Amino acid sequence: MSGHENKNKMGLKQALAAVQQGLCSAEEIIADCFDRIEAREADVGAWQHRLTREECLDQYRCNREFYEQSLLKGMPVGIKDIIDTADMPTEMGSPIHQGRRPVDDASCVTLLREAGAIVLGKTVTTEFAYFRPGKTANPHDLERTPGGSSSGSAAAVADEMVPVALGSQTAASVIRPAAYCGTVGYVGSRGEFSLRGIQPLGQSLDSLGLFSRRVEDIELLRAVLLRQRDPLNSASALKPSKVLLCSGPAIGETSPEMIAAIRQVEAILVEQGVEVIAPDLGTWLGDLVVHHGCIMAYEASRNLAYESRFPEQLSEPLHALIETGLATSRDDYLKSLHAAEEIRQRLFSEFAGVDAILAPAAPGAAPEGRDKTGAPHMSRPWQVMGLPVVTLPGLMDDNQLPLGIQLVGQARDDDRLLSMARWLESCLSS
Amino acid sequence: MSGHENKNKMGLKQALAAVQQGLCSAEEIIADCFDRIEAREADVGAWQHRLTREECLDQYRCNREFYEQSLLKGMPVGIKDIIDTADMPTEMGSPIHQGRRPVDDASCVTLLREAGAIVLGKTVTTEFAYFRPGKTANPHDLERTPGGSSSGSAAAVADEMVPVALGSQTAASVIRPAAYCGTVGYVGSRGEFSLRGIQPLGQSLDSLGLFSRRVEDIELLRAVLLRQRDPLNSASALKPSKVLLCSGPAIGETSPEMIAAIRQVEAILVEQGVEVIAPDLGTWLGDLVVHHGCIMAYEASRNLAYESRFPEQLSEPLHALIETGLATSRDDYLKSLHAAEEIRQRLFSEFAGVDAILAPAAPGAAPEGRDKTGAPHMSRPWQVMGLPVVTLPGLMDDNQLPLGIQLVGQARDDDRLLSMARWLESCLSS
Repeated sequence: MSGHENKNKMGLKQALAAVQQGLCSAEEIIADCFDRIEAREADVGAWQHRLTREECLDQYRCNREFYEQSLLKGMPVGIKDIIDTADMPTEMGSPIHQGRRPVDDASCVTLLREAGAIVLGKTVTTEFAYFRPGKTANPHDLERTPGGSSSGSAAAVADEMVPVALGSQTAASVIRPAAYCGTVGYVGSRGEFSLRGIQPLGQSLDSLGLFSRRVEDIELLRAVLLRQRDPLNSASALKPSKVLLCSGPAIGETSPEMIAAIRQVEAILVEQGVEVIAPDLGTWLGDLVVHHGCIMAYEASRNLAYESRFPEQLSEPLHALIETGLATSRDDYLKSLHAAEEIRQRLFSEFAGVDAILAPAAPGAAPEGRDKTGAPHMSRPWQVMGLPVVTLPGLMDDNQLPLGIQLVGQARDDDRLLSMARWLESCLSS
Repeated sequence: MSGHENKNKMGLKQALAAVQQGLCSAEEIIADCFDRIEAREADVGAWQHRLTREECLDQYRCNREFYEQSLLKGMPVGIKDIIDTADMPTEMGSPIHQGRRPVDDASCVTLLREAGAIVLGKTVTTEFAYFRPGKTANPHDLERTPGGSSSGSAAAVADEMVPVALGSQTAASVIRPAAYCGTVGYVGSRGEFSLRGIQPLGQSLDSLGLFSRRVEDIELLRAVLLRQRDPLNSASALKPSKVLLCSGPAIGETSPEMIAAIRQVEAILVEQGVEVIAPDLGTWLGDLVVHHGCIMAYEASRNLAYESRFPEQLSEPLHALIETGLATSRDDYLKSLHAAEEIRQRLFSEFAGVDAILAPAAPGAAPEGRDKTGAPHMSRPWQVMGLPVVTLPGLMDDNQLPLGIQLVGQARDDDRLLSMARWLESCLSS
């Protein structure tokens, strides 16, 4: 690691190793992250609120001994502004909560800080993690959306402002921005992490999510968030034996470039000796998209009870979501919950030998325009079944825009899924 | 309703009807609740923080028009001090959070206030809704525990200080104090309510709970919390066709008085023409008790990440819970989650025609001494399966202490369960 390279480009584990080996200091990495932010933030707009360079370096220097002895060595992280922080505002992308300052850190923030991460700032979220975009641009093309709702976290990691960031997903809020921005994205199984201090949208759907540029960094953060005893010790990369391929159209609109990308990954898998099946799943996935929408509307209208007092401060789509939720009958809501669980059970019993599902992480590359965040349908089926998902970057369209794919695992089988994602990552980058 | 009666004795719906009919005013009811609190609070100790009589009446008078037109007419409610309130401290029974003042109301608080309830105060909780008791006494015998963790809510409702109160349950925190104090208690199915702003202990276990003196009041509050269109309109009481009886010993220690009480309810059911079965469930229920404990320890140790920094300010049992959780292997945790779901499915497929399960709500009457809150085993099996439960009062032991029974429904079948509970309530009181 020479003094000339930009140390903000390193992944988290790579940076920790460099610090450990004395190749560079944590302060140099922090300084390079700020160089990058200062050069790019006016264009990218990833941050809602952040420390200044001086505040961040002061925080490091005032607690140098702690950071030096810590696991994460003072490495900077971004936190989606839907996640509470006691030392910075948490405004949830809404004027209703302008200047809101929580009294507690969310538990995920507590755990990262305790492991030695420095919260560099809060990243832009769409309004309450739903549709209305913030100011963030796609680092690959500033006229395109970064995707939502974890827009700022995806853009900050993709643009090498920070090595890792936290997000959350109720529909497609991690997987889609990771795909559009070309980062790794991970959504934990339902129930996997403590969601204390994360604004809920749908209690049957919400998951914590993580962004990084390498799968190994997700594994490290995950271990920290689960308070595992030896967070640096991850399992070997795992080649799946059998993968179920879903090229996209069975879920919804899919671009030809995305279908070609999925076929390219299929060819890599087959070449590596992985059995790939592409059964006709009938209407299951399309049905799950509908059930997801029903559950989300019903639950959001209860979770956002406070905010629905201020209709004039809500975007039209969010207002419509709440109205739809209030008009949804309890019977329809329960039917959707029941149907999603039934399809999940049938899927994994009918295809019992499948190790993972491969599908597009988004309908295509990031669409033009920053007034929308792209369509969420590619994530809805897995999210309503509570499954863990990893977005992998590496493929591009003709405009050199990222085309993200996703690997989906069985419920609560997150560790094995990440081992398989790490294996596939190495295939895609070689 | 003559001027001489104590208006605090009325149930919520009864009070609303009296106000509606001009038999008394909301202010008179509030005043009588304060008379009761002032007479009894020094002994019972239900409140952690509360409005003064003047503050409460001012709140009513300054918004008289709103309250008069509202559904709940300014009726006072108690809120367990694990649930965030923006206008009062929320200290969660721990010195770590002394004076903690959240920036937002929990969504359940928002919805009650919006419907016209006045939050009279915060009720005593055990430390983080676990074992260490607060100051509350059992109103039926001040030397006995009110049960925990929703100790203050149960005692305040039982002692007629307020008609209704909110609680929460991760193990037995609503069902047991309701049983010991002789109130109705209700725990919603997993996922039923928005838990925004309620301190989590175990994300796979936590439920919102309600206390009242009549089942109909639970139904009204539930409708408000679900934003139902016509909250006063509840279904007819429903006689179950078939009830599965669990007398207690298959779960754990059960007092002879409690077994006799359950037999008494069985006799009533049979007399009413209900089919009662009492099959041998083998080790299912005992196994569920163990699985519940494993999941609770694992998840609590992640949810209380912040608090585990302050071991000297934690009680010994809570510290031990966190240590147990950190020492629990992920495999064991996942096995417990899986086993609980498997038993749930087998139970309801093997006994498909059963409308409800009848069991003791606690091992017996409230034990002597206020240093412990009683054993939680009677609730663990249902809680780990995510089922809705109602505690019904009405039975007494030889010392005139309440013996609570519980009626358990299928997951998400809360409305039907409450209709059956209302039917059984009428049998027990006649």
